[in-house]
Amino acid sequence: MPTPRPIRATYLIETAFPLEQATEMMAGEQSSGTFVKTPGETDELKEKHAAHIEGIEVVGETNQPSLPKARVPKGVTNPTYQQAKVTLSWPLENVGVNLSNLMATVAGNLFELAPFSALKLLEITVPADYQKAYPGTQFGTAGTRELIGMDDRPIIGTIIKPSVGLSPEQTARQVETLIEAGLDFIKDDELMGDSPHSPFEQRVDAVMKVINRYADRHGKKSMFAFNLSGDIDDMLRRHDYVLKQGGTCVMVSLNWVGISGVAKLRQHCQLPIHGHRNGWGLYSRSEAIGLDFPVYQTIFSLAGADHIHTNGIRNKFCETDESVLRSIKSCLNPTGGGYPVTPVISSGQWAEQAHDTYQAMQSADLMYLCGGGITGHPGGLAAGVRSIQLGWEGAMKGQTIYDLQDQHPEIQQAIELYGNK
Amino acid sequence: MPTPRPIRATYLIETAFPLEQATEMMAGEQSSGTFVKTPGETDELKEKHAAHIEGIEVVGETNQPSLPKARVPKGVTNPTYQQAKVTLSWPLENVGVNLSNLMATVAGNLFELAPFSALKLLEITVPADYQKAYPGTQFGTAGTRELIGMDDRPIIGTIIKPSVGLSPEQTARQVETLIEAGLDFIKDDELMGDSPHSPFEQRVDAVMKVINRYADRHGKKSMFAFNLSGDIDDMLRRHDYVLKQGGTCVMVSLNWVGISGVAKLRQHCQLPIHGHRNGWGLYSRSEAIGLDFPVYQTIFSLAGADHIHTNGIRNKFCETDESVLRSIKSCLNPTGGGYPVTPVISSGQWAEQAHDTYQAMQSADLMYLCGGGITGHPGGLAAGVRSIQLGWEGAMKGQTIYDLQDQHPEIQQAIELYGNK
Repeated sequence: MPTPRPIRATYLIETAFPLEQATEMMAGEQSSGTFVKTPGETDELKEKHAAHIEGIEVVGETNQPSLPKARVPKGVTNPTYQQAKVTLSWPLENVGVNLSNLMATVAGNLFELAPFSALKLLEITVPADYQKAYPGTQFGTAGTRELIGMDDRPIIGTIIKPSVGLSPEQTARQVETLIEAGLDFIKDDELMGDSPHSPFEQRVDAVMKVINRYADRHGKKSMFAFNLSGDIDDMLRRHDYVLKQGGTCVMVSLNWVGISGVAKLRQHCQLPIHGHRNGWGLYSRSEAIGLDFPVYQTIFSLAGADHIHTNGIRNKFCETDESVLRSIKSCLNPTGGGYPVTPVISSGQWAEQAHDTYQAMQSADLMYLCGGGITGHPGGLAAGVRSIQLGWEGAMKGQTIYDLQDQHPEIQQAIELYGNK
Repeated sequence: MPTPRPIRATYLIETAFPLEQATEMMAGEQSSGTFVKTPGETDELKEKHAAHIEGIEVVGETNQPSLPKARVPKGVTNPTYQQAKVTLSWPLENVGVNLSNLMATVAGNLFELAPFSALKLLEITVPADYQKAYPGTQFGTAGTRELIGMDDRPIIGTIIKPSVGLSPEQTARQVETLIEAGLDFIKDDELMGDSPHSPFEQRVDAVMKVINRYADRHGKKSMFAFNLSGDIDDMLRRHDYVLKQGGTCVMVSLNWVGISGVAKLRQHCQLPIHGHRNGWGLYSRSEAIGLDFPVYQTIFSLAGADHIHTNGIRNKFCETDESVLRSIKSCLNPTGGGYPVTPVISSGQWAEQAHDTYQAMQSADLMYLCGGGITGHPGGLAAGVRSIQLGWEGAMKGQTIYDLQDQHPEIQQAIELYGNK
């Protein structure tokens, strides 16, 4: 009986070598083969452990290699580089249930192989064993809403600005203004951690005093994501402190804390983990090298993130709307064997994008962060928050903000300010 | 008195915007600024917390943007993209002593900024506070040699092959042959972790039985790097098991375990940490996006690696010799505030590259891994190992293998086999 190979990975490759040969090199490098025939690589071992090629689909070709220094077959002078989507599969036997080893297997040394002038890992699939071993996402969108005490609409949030430099007391005063304006969620900037000018525990004390007082009076407890990124013991201690002071969320820089660090935090954690993806451009910015978001979603939802940043449509960075929507969808309906998480939509967002985002997703299970889209509103902060809420209420009924502008001055003002930008 | 800014980062950028304006955007995004003027960004806060521009050096220009979707200034139709090295600096105040926050500050969202058609982080410098907080590299080359019981020459090693699929007993039999042939160091392939067909503890038992027996009889204890990569508690448990069985090294996939995970392992670890960089191509392969090796060396030597893979000259991947030598040098003489580590030279290595590597480095404080360069040797494994030793002995006296071939049949045979490849 053939060994089942339930671990799968799909890549976009570009190579001047015959596609089958190039894909076999990938399969060999990432399983039982190497550059040369090895004496111990018996037929029995290959039958059990070699990676299989599940598919090769040509998608294009070019005469200009996307990355420099790729090797071409001997004797070829004017190479054509074929572009293809290829899928490999591995037995669970090879990897075990281990996120680090999984990544060593599906990514590993592949990105350095000389015959490839582009290699991007598009998606991975893992078997159910991974969910058994990794409890993963603990709160998700429903659990997050419950902690805040809010209905089934997007969680509307913002980020403390300036990113760095405010004292704990200044931060708390900004939080007070923001929750009075009606925000559901506020987060530290990723630059703000535990620094001399804003020690973590003092910031938690100052901010939670404001949030707890407001919650006592008004029944709604806005969520603040405290950035506890750092060394493992520090993160666990900071988590405990947030919990003790009545905080309801911790934030972590996924790429720098890393997979094992996030999984360890999750084991200990009693609060939603807000997963910040700063550094993501390293993986996403080039079309020729990197990881696509569904891979990231699979890994970090298994590691334990509850919320993961996805960027938003018509953002200020250089990601296309198509790519953003694919990321949001991957959070809501993961297909790689990870857990659903809350997509965190941000960057250049105001009321206008609510309609198109909802049209594309048919879901309001998301977090919608606005900076200037709220703080810059001519009617003030509360009007800014209201404009986003109205935008989403309309979006969920199929209305654009242009359908709403006559009824709502908050929308009218937002259009006047942001509409032509 | 101006705030000192001892954290520094140098980038290679490409942009169609005026260089000063583009660099100011980077500084703003990564410190107290944002896309728009924020009310709380007072002059006093900026004076204390804004990142400074330390230098801008033009290095080239192009009409073809290196990465797609970069924004150009309004009204510009035929943009010229300038390429420059730029250096930013930050006060320690902003970041604290925290490797995750350091990376969020020097890397963070920069790679996604729309005005850049290339952005690569070339090097970083951290103040001495980082070494005070992070004990880092524990054994280095001297400590590693001492554990093996060997002189001041390169540590010669190899990798178990096939990468995946051997049972613990098969692995141990291969280890026995390799240490009898005289190898100082043997490592798991990065694909081999703790999998059903080779459970970690069984592999340690089988391999250490062979190594301990040989050490008892012959006084030399070859080092085996067991790949313990995985979740934190599993890694600590596996480390303890290796230690208990008399093992002398553990290996970790730096990129997938992550910075916080490696630092946690280091706190607990009583053995050298062999840092495997699989996945490194994600950061290095493109000239337009990524991290250069000195950044990696700084971070992971502070986190605690003793050995870090660097590739070798005339390798089988697509890295240039210049880049490889820069990485090796960065391990031997780090300038970013990290610790010296053992560079692990591998890929396509045989006796020949010893001379050029030594000429470039004037140091034998390194690990030299050969696969086919040893196992493929026509005189057998022992002759293969001897050819590498002879190559290095000659190299340290200024001789090439071509100076040695007449005296040593092991060198002669190696040249006949590998010399024209």
